[in-house]
Amino acid sequence: MRIFYNDRHAVHHGRHEMFRGALVPCFEVPARADLVLQELRARRFGSIEAPPPIADAVIERVHAPRYLQFLATARDDWIALDPANAERDALPSYWPIRTFRTDVLPASFPARMGLFSFDAGSPITAGTWEAARHGAACAVAGAQRLLAGDRSAFALTRPPGHHAGSDFFGGYCFLNNAAIAAQALRDGGAARVVVLDIDYHHGNGTQAIFYERADVFFASVHGDPHTEYPYYPGYADERGAGTGVGANLNLPLPRGTDFARWREALQEALRAIRGFGADALVVSLGLDTFEGDPISGFRLRGDDYLRVGEDLAAAGLPTLFVFEGGYAVAEVGVNTVNLLQGFTST
Amino acid sequence: MRIFYNDRHAVHHGRHEMFRGALVPCFEVPARADLVLQELRARRFGSIEAPPPIADAVIERVHAPRYLQFLATARDDWIALDPANAERDALPSYWPIRTFRTDVLPASFPARMGLFSFDAGSPITAGTWEAARHGAACAVAGAQRLLAGDRSAFALTRPPGHHAGSDFFGGYCFLNNAAIAAQALRDGGAARVVVLDIDYHHGNGTQAIFYERADVFFASVHGDPHTEYPYYPGYADERGAGTGVGANLNLPLPRGTDFARWREALQEALRAIRGFGADALVVSLGLDTFEGDPISGFRLRGDDYLRVGEDLAAAGLPTLFVFEGGYAVAEVGVNTVNLLQGFTST
Ligand SMILES: [Zn+2]
Ligand SMILES: [Zn+2]
Repeated sequence: MRIFYNDRHAVHHGRHEMFRGALVPCFEVPARADLVLQELRARRFGSIEAPPPIADAVIERVHAPRYLQFLATARDDWIALDPANAERDALPSYWPIRTFRTDVLPASFPARMGLFSFDAGSPITAGTWEAARHGAACAVAGAQRLLAGDRSAFALTRPPGHHAGSDFFGGYCFLNNAAIAAQALRDGGAARVVVLDIDYHHGNGTQAIFYERADVFFASVHGDPHTEYPYYPGYADERGAGTGVGANLNLPLPRGTDFARWREALQEALRAIRGFGADALVVSLGLDTFEGDPISGFRLRGDDYLRVGEDLAAAGLPTLFVFEGGYAVAEVGVNTVNLLQGFTST
Repeated sequence: MRIFYNDRHAVHHGRHEMFRGALVPCFEVPARADLVLQELRARRFGSIEAPPPIADAVIERVHAPRYLQFLATARDDWIALDPANAERDALPSYWPIRTFRTDVLPASFPARMGLFSFDAGSPITAGTWEAARHGAACAVAGAQRLLAGDRSAFALTRPPGHHAGSDFFGGYCFLNNAAIAAQALRDGGAARVVVLDIDYHHGNGTQAIFYERADVFFASVHGDPHTEYPYYPGYADERGAGTGVGANLNLPLPRGTDFARWREALQEALRAIRGFGADALVVSLGLDTFEGDPISGFRLRGDDYLRVGEDLAAAGLPTLFVFEGGYAVAEVGVNTVNLLQGFTST
């Protein structure tokens, strides 16, 4: 399996995020990707390489130009507000609610930041744009391998992507790597593509991007949005809209769900994927379903990820894995490589 | 002039608000109202009294029941999350952006808080609900005085109200006192009512509440939303919708505007108000147009407020003043009473 590793990921390193009225250290840290890389090397799993650069046009197939322009200059704009901001990460503190306008791009940078975000937990740092762009390049390089005939590939990158929408960031995500890869597969000739999201959190960004489309099926197994981030989307009655009706499947599960129950939901998603008749599969690979994850509530164990890999392999589709969440840092490497090894072992 | 003073205002006292990625002390402090009260007494201006209690039904004429239920139990729900929260104010850290659902009320309290808010600068404290309800009672008591034939009244309360919408808080505001009073005037027999907002910041909540109505005219003179809070609404091309087209007038002005230019905008608003033919006027009385205001950008001086009061009196309408913003605490009392004295002197 070719592994496209974002060797620029560590330039995105947030200091703090808002949690329940206070600033706490970020959960989404560079060690996450470092430890996966270390485990891949320790097990001599796959061939690790850097991706070719990504063209802006490929990102713009998924993200709105005004949002990308915002991200590209966000750090400079933030420091222009106050030179002391060079030592601070940017977090939004107001946003356009119902009845507010979103058609006007405010001159104020903090206002633009609020316009394009849905939480105060995703700091924009000095390296965010660079790391995010390189990450999208990893995902697209993996998609290109599938189009070239490879059975699988793995985009090992952070920040993650599945919470990012066409024109918003949040949930530690800025560019939706999985969605960009799925679109690249479509544009490269795959007629029908599936994104299967097995992160603990609903992949609201990916869902929103493809919600009205019949050519990309989105399926997600995740924590019940009534109690779990990102809260507002991810319910089972969200089935797609317009021509996309029926091409969206949400399988929310309660906190405390164990592997047996989780695996039933995975099987249900895989049956729907088979019914859809896809040419390629993109897996949003979050490892925060692990029992030891500090911000999540499922109870999967290390060996369970071998079974997950086997189940995914049984779908029989060219498969791109895109690294998403997983915050039990010490175990994230082992769990990730377990899953990939389960996939390749069958 | 009868003055309805919210003697419970100080039980709402936020500790911190988010500003540019950091938590800073709140600008909206109890001393604001205390110093106005002190100045009223020092000048022996008006008769100061407590309002009668307000019925829930009066508030529900403007605010959505599910939002009021949220506010009523917010503090208890916040502490139920974690007993240590008794020592912390509640601030939202995620919110429903475009493509997110707002029809489902999440079980999670922080998610509900995000659903009903548009900034992380308006802490919900132990006394917020009590203070806000008493404040609405002050505004309604003032409205009742106008209906009884008084020429004017003043609701001296905090937290302020004009940023609060039918179902959201923000900008230090929780219940929209001016809108509740305007509706009470309508319900008490005034056929046509005007809300004139002279706070430095656009009265987005009031605008949104009456945007599709022809019976309540909303006019606002405020800082240009391109650079000034609340940013997303407040542009000149917002003229109302549906039957309310033409009954909304925004007069945004650039930072640095002096009294001469500001007064021209006030005169323009007053001409439109005369054209509307109102039976009563509610003034959202913010004093953050003052040159010394720490978070605003106009250049009005202390004596200018006497002229503002005279100009408002010239409209010849029964007038209810409702206290809104103004953060130059030491001067807020003098400036407020100057305006009221200008009004009564003519
Ligand atoms: Zn996650
Ligand atoms: Zn104000």
